[in-house]
Amino acid sequence: MTRETYTLLEDYMLSCMEDSAHDKEHIYRVLYTALDIAGTEKDVDMDVLICACLLHDIGRREQFEDPRVCHARAGADKAYRFLREHGFPESFAAHVRECISSHRYRKDSQPQTIEAKILFDADKVDVSGAIGIARTLVYKGQVSEPLYRVLPDGRVSDGTGDAEPSFFQEYKYKLEGLYDRFHTVRGAEIAGQRRQAAAAFYESLLREVSEPCGKGREMLRAYVE
Amino acid sequence: MTRETYTLLEDYMLSCMEDSAHDKEHIYRVLYTALDIAGTEKDVDMDVLICACLLHDIGRREQFEDPRVCHARAGADKAYRFLREHGFPESFAAHVRECISSHRYRKDSQPQTIEAKILFDADKVDVSGAIGIARTLVYKGQVSEPLYRVLPDGRVSDGTGDAEPSFFQEYKYKLEGLYDRFHTVRGAEIAGQRRQAAAAFYESLLREVSEPCGKGREMLRAYVE
Repeated sequence: MTRETYTLLEDYMLSCMEDSAHDKEHIYRVLYTALDIAGTEKDVDMDVLICACLLHDIGRREQFEDPRVCHARAGADKAYRFLREHGFPESFAAHVRECISSHRYRKDSQPQTIEAKILFDADKVDVSGAIGIARTLVYKGQVSEPLYRVLPDGRVSDGTGDAEPSFFQEYKYKLEGLYDRFHTVRGAEIAGQRRQAAAAFYESLLREVSEPCGKGREMLRAYVE
Repeated sequence: MTRETYTLLEDYMLSCMEDSAHDKEHIYRVLYTALDIAGTEKDVDMDVLICACLLHDIGRREQFEDPRVCHARAGADKAYRFLREHGFPESFAAHVRECISSHRYRKDSQPQTIEAKILFDADKVDVSGAIGIARTLVYKGQVSEPLYRVLPDGRVSDGTGDAEPSFFQEYKYKLEGLYDRFHTVRGAEIAGQRRQAAAAFYESLLREVSEPCGKGREMLRAYVE
């Protein structure tokens, strides 16, 4: 890929993300991780992969404005149109569209080509480990959801089976089990190396908020009659 | 304290926090931790302490609406007025005001009484360990600040000396060094037990975002001419 093409794609990506300046770092992390994974796979079309990584989240704004929109589908179509308008071959634009369309975990749309599988895995690596914890907590702040729920009996719920959204619910539903869902050996390996950091953080946080709660409610009863 | 008084104070606290539903869990954590610390100190006025814990953040909205306002001072005055209006003795209301006014770290307003010192420490315990990390990340999401800054040479800054706000900057400026600033032995002890969890998370996150960045920029140069 020429520097000129890279800059064209990067500028378009940045223009789609102007409302959330720091999300662009997620794009670069996914790109760099994808390059790492690609180094362990055969016959990867690097131009398709780099392009798909740069543009994979350009449909985020559409999903933010209307939650019924799937950002993977919206972004795939936007990328296809942009590439065709800028003279990229149809087969290239269609391949990038396939990668972006299937990068989100969905039963009805699994990644088929090696480039799509690498993008999927690189994106999931960025939800693993400490970075997955950090991004989830930042998101909870953005949408004003709590760290945890308190059960009717006053105990802190660890997230298991929670109906209401919270950080602990997200950890139990999504973050804890994602390590078995990789398509590439290298993707699973990078995420696996980070697994312990995420688990340790969750366990520490659960202990820190649960212990004072149990003990404190008991003590409070001694002072409030 | 009677159950009726506790409910009056709790309801007032909740009414001051209606715009950020989950912050009330911070209040309960501070209250429970304060009761734990109080159990190791002598001659603590438990009614003053419980009241000050419940009301210590009721000035948050005023600070949110006008960042020049100090929520500790605004909350102290609000609490004093509320208590006087509801028939609490002047000495009680003034003591609670002192506790709330000095619970925020400031050179010109250090906590003087044992109840003020316990509130200060209990509030700082909730910025230590994994809960301190989690609350800081949620806040970064609320105010749309990034996890880290990228230096002009492309490396990720670890936060040291950063002029621009980020999670790493906050960790380096505030979270990393808070463990030496406690007034009570028990407060320092609880925070100390959590210190390793916070440090481990920061180190993991720094490693996860720095390594792919360095390696990835190198690899990208091989594919983009």
